[in-house]
Amino acid sequence: MRDLSQDHRWLSINTATVRQWPLDRIIEECGRRQIRAISPWRDQVAAVGSASVARLLRDTGIVLSGYCRGGMFPASTALGRQQAIDDNRRAIDEARELNAPCLVLVVGGLPAGSASKDIGAAREQVRDGIAQILDYARSVHMPLAIEPLHPMYAADRACVNTLEQALDLCDELDPEKTGALGVAVDVYHVWWDPKLKTQIDRAGRTRLLAFHVCDWLVPTRDLLNDRGMMGDGVIDIPTIRTWVEAAGYEGFNEVEIFSSENWGRRDGGDVLDICIERHASAV
Amino acid sequence: MRDLSQDHRWLSINTATVRQWPLDRIIEECGRRQIRAISPWRDQVAAVGSASVARLLRDTGIVLSGYCRGGMFPASTALGRQQAIDDNRRAIDEARELNAPCLVLVVGGLPAGSASKDIGAAREQVRDGIAQILDYARSVHMPLAIEPLHPMYAADRACVNTLEQALDLCDELDPEKTGALGVAVDVYHVWWDPKLKTQIDRAGRTRLLAFHVCDWLVPTRDLLNDRGMMGDGVIDIPTIRTWVEAAGYEGFNEVEIFSSENWGRRDGGDVLDICIERHASAV
Repeated sequence: MRDLSQDHRWLSINTATVRQWPLDRIIEECGRRQIRAISPWRDQVAAVGSASVARLLRDTGIVLSGYCRGGMFPASTALGRQQAIDDNRRAIDEARELNAPCLVLVVGGLPAGSASKDIGAAREQVRDGIAQILDYARSVHMPLAIEPLHPMYAADRACVNTLEQALDLCDELDPEKTGALGVAVDVYHVWWDPKLKTQIDRAGRTRLLAFHVCDWLVPTRDLLNDRGMMGDGVIDIPTIRTWVEAAGYEGFNEVEIFSSENWGRRDGGDVLDICIERHASAV
Repeated sequence: MRDLSQDHRWLSINTATVRQWPLDRIIEECGRRQIRAISPWRDQVAAVGSASVARLLRDTGIVLSGYCRGGMFPASTALGRQQAIDDNRRAIDEARELNAPCLVLVVGGLPAGSASKDIGAAREQVRDGIAQILDYARSVHMPLAIEPLHPMYAADRACVNTLEQALDLCDELDPEKTGALGVAVDVYHVWWDPKLKTQIDRAGRTRLLAFHVCDWLVPTRDLLNDRGMMGDGVIDIPTIRTWVEAAGYEGFNEVEIFSSENWGRRDGGDVLDICIERHASAV
């Protein structure tokens, strides 16, 4: 197990954690703190301009731990599904331009605006959607990381809800384990899973493309925007990190905290400083 | 598949759905509507008195579809765990007194008031707790129904979070499938599970002791108290009921809606009338 107590070389900041700032400011502030990696969102990149972002990254030496995000495949019409495919191809291109190690896929839930309650059908659309972008992603060497989301998001964000289910998808679409398809493991989404260790072992180095950390608060006051800072909740993060590293993961620990009412209202610099502290003490 | 459109003979009301009323009033109002079954909570029974409740049930001919609830096994001290065992024995006795077909177990999460983040240890305490009450429950012919709760309750209510996990526990503690141990399947907790049909098939008639219905709203505004009326959300309840009945379940469809801000504020009679309508059209 890596020792995180001496420095924060393995810390990455998902830029949704500090949406107080535009992306150029985030990169600058991370650089000032010797944070070596970030994972930016497409809208944040678009707001600053991808060429500017690429230049800022070069200037600061900051790399990406992932790019957020592709996915959202299910739609109630064939046109809608094709638009999702087209949009995912653009996301792959953007991820390439910024030298991301993977594009994170939040796969989507039940088709928006439809009356469909058929989660099985939505899951088939997800499988078909990933299958349709996988060859292109492989051809430009951009790995796709399926992120299983907590079951409380099954209806409206992602109908891939366990690591086992995500790995079943990987095995179906990439049986040779080429490295083109894997998973993003976010402790917030999977910490409760009685099969977590087994499935992390199954994933192994080839499938483990990203590792995200934050904490589960008790009580949780909002389904989407009440994530906690590492150490403030009930997730045994070090144990899960042990499992991930034992399975071969050697990448960054990416802090991703959606917390509009708490961390989102604090000074961004304080948030980053606390991320650095907690990465050393609670990850 | 049973036809629910002609009458509501298979409808049961979990009495948490109409907490506007004390239990005696609930029984009276259910009787007036030819509702044949209820599932009451211990505090509601205690408030009216169990002898009075038993008499009201006899007078109206209403039976129980379950008794709520036992469980809550994990505790940070041996004394706390013993108190939970003792309390579960009392719950078994109460369930017997009211001729319940099963005692529902909400097993508990991480030990309250402790700093423990060890969900594996909590799960062991749950297993040990059920093991300690099972012989007594069997001796008085009171089946125990483990209710897997949605993963969003893993920390504070129940660390048994999938039907597969609940059935693994059943197989470990009651390998002969004596009928003494089974599961309560609540669509709210399990609808998202990609393995749901497989595990319902696995459970079969012997393990399927209760079937609970309500709906998952999008958006869900509160983790505990924002359940929907059947038909108002995204759960394909009829499909899940088909699976449960195909596996051999022949009991009641128990409506359990925690909704303090919506249904909990309406007239109790209206709530019951709508439960009857939706049982015919959306279950």
